[in-house]
Amino acid sequence: MIKGWAAHAPKEKLEPYEYDPGELGPEEVEIAVEHCGICHSDLSIINNEWGISSYPVVPGHEVIGTVTALGAQAKGLKVGQKVGVGWGAGSCMHCNPCIGGDQNLCPENVPTIVGRHGGFAERVRVQWPWAIPIPEGLDPAEAGPLMCGGVTVYTPFEEFDIRSRDRVGVVGIGGLGHLALKFANAWGCEVTAFTSNDSKADEARSFGAHHVVNSRSDEDLQRIAGTLDLLIVTVNVSLNWRAMVNTLGPKGRLHVVGAVLKPIPVIAMELIGQQRSVSGSPNGSPIMMRRMLEFAARHNILPQTEHFPIAQVNDALAHLEAGKARYRIVLDM
Amino acid sequence: MIKGWAAHAPKEKLEPYEYDPGELGPEEVEIAVEHCGICHSDLSIINNEWGISSYPVVPGHEVIGTVTALGAQAKGLKVGQKVGVGWGAGSCMHCNPCIGGDQNLCPENVPTIVGRHGGFAERVRVQWPWAIPIPEGLDPAEAGPLMCGGVTVYTPFEEFDIRSRDRVGVVGIGGLGHLALKFANAWGCEVTAFTSNDSKADEARSFGAHHVVNSRSDEDLQRIAGTLDLLIVTVNVSLNWRAMVNTLGPKGRLHVVGAVLKPIPVIAMELIGQQRSVSGSPNGSPIMMRRMLEFAARHNILPQTEHFPIAQVNDALAHLEAGKARYRIVLDM
Repeated sequence: MIKGWAAHAPKEKLEPYEYDPGELGPEEVEIAVEHCGICHSDLSIINNEWGISSYPVVPGHEVIGTVTALGAQAKGLKVGQKVGVGWGAGSCMHCNPCIGGDQNLCPENVPTIVGRHGGFAERVRVQWPWAIPIPEGLDPAEAGPLMCGGVTVYTPFEEFDIRSRDRVGVVGIGGLGHLALKFANAWGCEVTAFTSNDSKADEARSFGAHHVVNSRSDEDLQRIAGTLDLLIVTVNVSLNWRAMVNTLGPKGRLHVVGAVLKPIPVIAMELIGQQRSVSGSPNGSPIMMRRMLEFAARHNILPQTEHFPIAQVNDALAHLEAGKARYRIVLDM
Repeated sequence: MIKGWAAHAPKEKLEPYEYDPGELGPEEVEIAVEHCGICHSDLSIINNEWGISSYPVVPGHEVIGTVTALGAQAKGLKVGQKVGVGWGAGSCMHCNPCIGGDQNLCPENVPTIVGRHGGFAERVRVQWPWAIPIPEGLDPAEAGPLMCGGVTVYTPFEEFDIRSRDRVGVVGIGGLGHLALKFANAWGCEVTAFTSNDSKADEARSFGAHHVVNSRSDEDLQRIAGTLDLLIVTVNVSLNWRAMVNTLGPKGRLHVVGAVLKPIPVIAMELIGQQRSVSGSPNGSPIMMRRMLEFAARHNILPQTEHFPIAQVNDALAHLEAGKARYRIVLDM
């Protein structure tokens, strides 16, 4: 039996919960959870905001732990090894995206916390490619949020060949956004933080922003019009999308990683004139997670965290839901 | 004096018109027009659909002609040389896009037919970089539409590193679309034509489409969901955008080159899940025009045209406006 914490219906508090994980599958890895970050999408799944939740929900997909058992076909891992787990817990491994290294784009990609149980628990299981070794030098107590939040904002740098002389903006300075500032700065870019909360300006600078603009100020947005190569949108609310697109320079890209639910009205002529793109991407593939962790270790990139013991998980979730997290919460088991 | 044909107000017929072009500027080239394609954007400018027209409008920006005079600073051209002119007639040459070879993205890019006079005339003038030499082996009587329609659909193949094994869709089989089919086929791609006009299916195949789908059939679009790497939208009307985006495979791109005026509602989650992009681009830079012409000459890519003498320019415009052009009209001077 595995002891964890589960929500039994939308909006309900988590309660202690035990489940029988069955026999370890041949491709599975079992991990003793030591720390687990809380991501906004844990709340979305607890509350069934995307209509894909299956209850009881054991949230948690920013896991750091130690391998305790390996299935017969699990490759490249050892019992006792420190690993991390993110949004994905399995994929078919044979479709074109999987065989090509884009397992996060597998149509059968299995989220860690949907239809199975996540990391707010003593132990968690994933298919072996999704247990990512944590490199030496990266503090395991702090690294959890890199596994989902971190790789989500790191991926566009690799996928779209962002260069160190590029200008990168980050909208929303929260769990994902503050990591995006750190990655963008370490990548060598000129970094602009967009926030509607002026009280975050100084911290945004401490995370690596060279400039801070108010994302609700038309004047601020107009002032930087036509300058950015990449604008990473980490929020899930509607923005002044025209003004956001118009911050992009020639060949610039507005890249959405927040689960914005309302359609984004894109003006074709504003893409055409300057050859701009609007795009999105989900979390990251195993190779992106490996490279991201290596890069984070080299540049000492870690989230700014608040720690709660697992017994206070409901307080932690309430803190996040209230928009008070600065900037990522980690549960200690 | 230069004799041409001009519209004096929106929706008015063109009338014979003479203007004094003044002294030839030091960077200018004067070209005796021999043939000039008609692009849908000639109609848009005649009718001031984009609010940027200045009357009298002398349309025409798919020019083929012969250099008759060169300004003192005009480079790389000779009197008597066969050249083509497209949408752009000049740019600042010193901004970052210009100095970087993306002169079509110059903020001061001057359209051939806005605030100056175009190719429905005996002669036309452009800044020298925008007079593109026509390679040997490309029939000058047919090449005009390559200068705007051709380079507009060719540019995304270069700019987005489309590979010969990619799957490319083309929405709208008209002036631009039929050239896009030819370029996509010659590029080595698997090509799907999207048309709402079933009578164009056989011709679409003759232009290079391996498959034809009805762009208004949800069933057709559903059948190819998740398959395309690039979908070039050449129409300027609203489509079932969700179904269009969903024809894209992982990392696929919907690329708009038609002047769609209503906002395109983009669902963030449908970009995120498969790392898709929505983008646009305008016509092409001088280097794109040179490479496009070289590629067209090598693969014998020319538009399918209907010719009208310049004296019947109003009949030709009416034919285009009625949606009857098959597939590009060329005026002979």
